[in-house]
Amino acid sequence: MKVLIVGTGAIGGFYGALLATQGAEVSVVCRSDYDAVKTNGIHIQSTLGEWTFKPAAVYRQAGEVESPPDHVILCTKVLPHIDRVALIRAAVGPDTAITLIQNGVEIEEELARAFPGNELISGLAFVCVSRAGPGKVWHQAYGALMLGAYPQGISPKVTSLCETFNRAGITARAMADIVAARWQKCVWNAPFNPLSVLSGGLYTSDILENQEPFVRQLMAEVCAIAEATGHPLPPDVIDKNITNTYKMPPYKTSMLLDFEAGRPMETEAILGNAVRAGQREGVATPRLAAVYGLMKLRELQLEKTANR
Amino acid sequence: MKVLIVGTGAIGGFYGALLATQGAEVSVVCRSDYDAVKTNGIHIQSTLGEWTFKPAAVYRQAGEVESPPDHVILCTKVLPHIDRVALIRAAVGPDTAITLIQNGVEIEEELARAFPGNELISGLAFVCVSRAGPGKVWHQAYGALMLGAYPQGISPKVTSLCETFNRAGITARAMADIVAARWQKCVWNAPFNPLSVLSGGLYTSDILENQEPFVRQLMAEVCAIAEATGHPLPPDVIDKNITNTYKMPPYKTSMLLDFEAGRPMETEAILGNAVRAGQREGVATPRLAAVYGLMKLRELQLEKTANR
Repeated sequence: MKVLIVGTGAIGGFYGALLATQGAEVSVVCRSDYDAVKTNGIHIQSTLGEWTFKPAAVYRQAGEVESPPDHVILCTKVLPHIDRVALIRAAVGPDTAITLIQNGVEIEEELARAFPGNELISGLAFVCVSRAGPGKVWHQAYGALMLGAYPQGISPKVTSLCETFNRAGITARAMADIVAARWQKCVWNAPFNPLSVLSGGLYTSDILENQEPFVRQLMAEVCAIAEATGHPLPPDVIDKNITNTYKMPPYKTSMLLDFEAGRPMETEAILGNAVRAGQREGVATPRLAAVYGLMKLRELQLEKTANR
Repeated sequence: MKVLIVGTGAIGGFYGALLATQGAEVSVVCRSDYDAVKTNGIHIQSTLGEWTFKPAAVYRQAGEVESPPDHVILCTKVLPHIDRVALIRAAVGPDTAITLIQNGVEIEEELARAFPGNELISGLAFVCVSRAGPGKVWHQAYGALMLGAYPQGISPKVTSLCETFNRAGITARAMADIVAARWQKCVWNAPFNPLSVLSGGLYTSDILENQEPFVRQLMAEVCAIAEATGHPLPPDVIDKNITNTYKMPPYKTSMLLDFEAGRPMETEAILGNAVRAGQREGVATPRLAAVYGLMKLRELQLEKTANR
């Protein structure tokens, strides 16, 4: 199995390294850490062990790839200024399956339209992993993947990818309705990510203890959108999310970590796409739209401060 | 006319000084700047001139007042930890009229209940005035007052106060429905104040250019609450507010100035009271409530940071 990871940060480095442990021929496209990765490979410090992943090839961009791989796995953030289609186009052959390990809702259609003849696999990572330095990945906790064919179903390639990841030591589940799984993840992300940023840095526990009814209302709006798009979520999804979050230790959301590090936030992928789906489906989302509007103002202010 | 100003900061110092120029016997209760005011009076630097206001008496608290004045004018901020009734009780006699020059909506009832036998005058200031140092007030612009009997009507004392302020050089209008006037001011305050804070410091112009539809929705929720409480606002109130705000130079809201200076914000008086009025009247206010919830989280985070 020939695999090309595009967007080899913490997520891409970690999952690519796992596939390589199972004999896959894994190459990587990596820009910021190119020199370090080319010279030393990617050092993985993980709850699964510590090892160095030596990619079969290290590229600066997909155009350098000589022959199309079986799998392109796209692991960048989903941000307005990142052209995901352009990032992978040169490496995608007629038989290449494209897998997204990315956050957000309704992020697949752009790729499905650009590559109508290719299998598209949509994937969600539940993992705590970060970049510890150039070519250094620190896998702190969790690691589960959900993978499914887009728009639905479980293809042989989904099954085979899941089996490979499972053999590598993480839990990878094949999902018949990966779009519903994205909405289900959004039930948690849509409130906690922006609220942690707009509050100026609160932990999930603080947010929940102070504003549980508001959090539940935001979650209910996400559920209503999901249902309207044809992907109804389990009736207890909100209660379970609330209960589980109360059980978690004080936790900083990924969006808050990005905010604090001055990195761009996945506001559009997580919140903007949800609000737009609600508008399209005629679902009222006044609270989500308010939070989205505030995030846009927060980002505008960050931009103005950065340009000063 | 014997007047006691309680809460002699920028607002109280400025309006007290104006009354004194018209021959009123104006005393002040003032805590933080007591020594400076006792020794030197209050220096006023204003678009109306520059002068020193020497209060008839300077007190640390209302309990020191020997005989009840004709008017107690309360000019503190409206904050949960400020007990407004306790601040004035000792100075209020049977014939004392109580005037509030304070921000927010539905802030009168607490005083009306505590002093059922006293005339209550509710007042709004449209003024740009700040404390330039101990006993120093800087009046930068505007200055208009709206005064009305609570819950409604124009009493002889309202008329007389307005006449005195007008003679002193500002515009004071007697309002038959001062409660409606509060809601009308809230149409502007409820969106711009919290959005300027939650965005991290944007000017009103930035907020409006980026999120005009959201601002209009928040304004519409305030109008709906006002109407449900029996104080319908003019149909063009939103358009006028939007047009006027576009005409203003880039402007920092009072809440943003408080936020940036680390002072407590009038979140409850402006936003919390509006949301609670909506709940009581059965008016849906999902966006206002979302913004209010976020302000509570922002304040929680400020508190946690301050206690660190």
